[in-house]
Amino acid sequence: MSLTNLRFSQSSPDSRAYYGDGVRPQYDFGIAYPDPRSVPALELSEALRIGADSEGQDLALYPGIQGYKPLRQFLSDKLARDRNISVTADQILLTSGAGQGIHITMEMLLDPGDVVLVDDFTYSGGLAQIKRFRGDPQPVKTDNEGMLPDALEATIQRLLREGRTIKLIYLVPSFQNPQGWSISLERRKAILAAAQRHNLVILEDDSYCDLRYEGAAIPALRTLDEEGHVIYISTFSKTIAPGMRCGYLTASGALFERAMACKSGGPVPLFVSLAIHRYSDQLASHIEQINDIQMSKRNAMLAGLSEHFSDSATWIRPEGGLSIWVKMKQEVDLQAIRDKVFATDNVSYMPGNRFSPDLSTGKNFMRLSYGFNTPEEIYEGMGKLAAAFRREGVL
Amino acid sequence: MSLTNLRFSQSSPDSRAYYGDGVRPQYDFGIAYPDPRSVPALELSEALRIGADSEGQDLALYPGIQGYKPLRQFLSDKLARDRNISVTADQILLTSGAGQGIHITMEMLLDPGDVVLVDDFTYSGGLAQIKRFRGDPQPVKTDNEGMLPDALEATIQRLLREGRTIKLIYLVPSFQNPQGWSISLERRKAILAAAQRHNLVILEDDSYCDLRYEGAAIPALRTLDEEGHVIYISTFSKTIAPGMRCGYLTASGALFERAMACKSGGPVPLFVSLAIHRYSDQLASHIEQINDIQMSKRNAMLAGLSEHFSDSATWIRPEGGLSIWVKMKQEVDLQAIRDKVFATDNVSYMPGNRFSPDLSTGKNFMRLSYGFNTPEEIYEGMGKLAAAFRREGVL
Repeated sequence: MSLTNLRFSQSSPDSRAYYGDGVRPQYDFGIAYPDPRSVPALELSEALRIGADSEGQDLALYPGIQGYKPLRQFLSDKLARDRNISVTADQILLTSGAGQGIHITMEMLLDPGDVVLVDDFTYSGGLAQIKRFRGDPQPVKTDNEGMLPDALEATIQRLLREGRTIKLIYLVPSFQNPQGWSISLERRKAILAAAQRHNLVILEDDSYCDLRYEGAAIPALRTLDEEGHVIYISTFSKTIAPGMRCGYLTASGALFERAMACKSGGPVPLFVSLAIHRYSDQLASHIEQINDIQMSKRNAMLAGLSEHFSDSATWIRPEGGLSIWVKMKQEVDLQAIRDKVFATDNVSYMPGNRFSPDLSTGKNFMRLSYGFNTPEEIYEGMGKLAAAFRREGVL
Repeated sequence: MSLTNLRFSQSSPDSRAYYGDGVRPQYDFGIAYPDPRSVPALELSEALRIGADSEGQDLALYPGIQGYKPLRQFLSDKLARDRNISVTADQILLTSGAGQGIHITMEMLLDPGDVVLVDDFTYSGGLAQIKRFRGDPQPVKTDNEGMLPDALEATIQRLLREGRTIKLIYLVPSFQNPQGWSISLERRKAILAAAQRHNLVILEDDSYCDLRYEGAAIPALRTLDEEGHVIYISTFSKTIAPGMRCGYLTASGALFERAMACKSGGPVPLFVSLAIHRYSDQLASHIEQINDIQMSKRNAMLAGLSEHFSDSATWIRPEGGLSIWVKMKQEVDLQAIRDKVFATDNVSYMPGNRFSPDLSTGKNFMRLSYGFNTPEEIYEGMGKLAAAFRREGVL
């Protein structure tokens, strides 16, 4: 068929780019997987069996778009306990991962050309969703505590002078992806004040909040916000498994109403929700266990970095999450050698420019994720990566 | 927060309107549920256990957007066997129910104001997705074999004269929802020829194709099409359970590439796909079993109709599917009394106007779905419905 007379209406990203394509290197530092060996697959299948035994017939029904209410009730309790966020089960929408929460937010708020303010380097899936809805992600300079308030205000003023419409600020405040820092309390207050001053929505992507293995938790922007500016999203992908495709979104008033109307594909499957709900009483201890594992993996990667990269790179030591952000000398191009290192040395990493709104800035940075391999493999893989980099003349 | 300066970009339907809201009447003829008592909940949980035992660690990974390949391979085989459709696993995209297949198609093809040709009464979820992307569903007159080819051509010519852009034809060829007829082979060929002549895409929603308990199968439009005009979607919602939220889409070339790029929320959960895949060798016999059950339910409803409605209504006897389409006298308004009958008599039905593009035509029709209740309850409920209708003066 000739498609010449069919103009596709959406400029969508290639979704496959976010996901692995089945070919994984031996040392997979490219994607922020949780630890595969501690995925509670059998506990989840037992949880599902228990749930199906009592409520299996309900699989025949079309439930409300918000998803299984007992799981939303669990989340209401969890958000109150862990993040001091007060929302009822009725103010929570289950989503297909945090990614769908981002999709929903962009779909409901963006008109073509609208600006979304983002960190100078931020989650590539967030950037892709902004561009999918023809939004314009504009970077704001950050340091190790998050967006610089002066830079934020200056960027807003410049864009307003240019006649641009700014709709929202996208943030990953806990263990920012890819940079690893968390936004300090003071900065959170400053960013929130800017959002209130300019009547902007904040999309707070708290996907990594449970993965803290050092330091004290910092209040969520949603907790600090009393004016309903914050759409808060998170996910079970990093604490249970991405293969569940279960995240959640909460917001106030009209924002929440519209989010429900934009949810695609019906509710999160009851089949998934039943399993997570019946498993939920084991979740806190599971998170403790995986955080111990991830900390040892982080330490293995930090040891590898110290041993091989100290002379040529700097990095941020994260207190949680799944990745370390590494900066090399300005002239280094890690994008250019990525495929060769993958193919030749069986090691992957994510070049920094993938996290930049222009997809070009930051080729001398890389994100190294340590969720997939064991600590021993990570340490070994860092040696392989260093050898590859020396061969390529960048180390 | 004041939202006055935030213009929401999408005119979305209230998704909650498609789904039950938790309050179900005793006699629930309003929604096309599959039979709850035969949902294979424990078989699915056993299937999941077996899948998780061998591939549970893969829940930690981010797989390709198309979803679990062994399940797509099963679908490739099933489509070849049951529908004579030749597609490889790589040409199949798993979706969150057939509803997401509709969403994807509308998102990728529609610009605001574009026309989608639809049956005079068609699936309300399809209409809602067309309107969500600001498309204009234009009805074409049907009889008991589907769209009338002359009416289709005349509608196309009229719209072209008016300068309108027509993008696609949305069809439910097997046990059309809500009308229950299937499009005859001759009509399928005529509609396909019209699509080819005018270079239109056909979205073939074959969600009910497996639910045939009488008569011979009719080839899919996708089978007849040799030019890549047909996007074919179907679902496990009616054969296994809507609570799995697993459907599938196949198309050719650029249409398929764009469909993958528009898939929201990542792939269908591996947790769901593993269960369906390991259950799939039981699916054919399960379908035989539920079709026996549904036929007895249909017969109970037909008996109730014959007993109570013969003087005042006509209906289409479906050879499969989950619903009967009933026409009453022109002056009857079944929309007006629907809520009262629900509340007073504990019986629900879906007024015909909900399936009309203008949401107003067809108030003297109703769709009666027979998946939820037992045959005995159905027969009893039809008596209650007749009594309510007599009281309301419409019977």
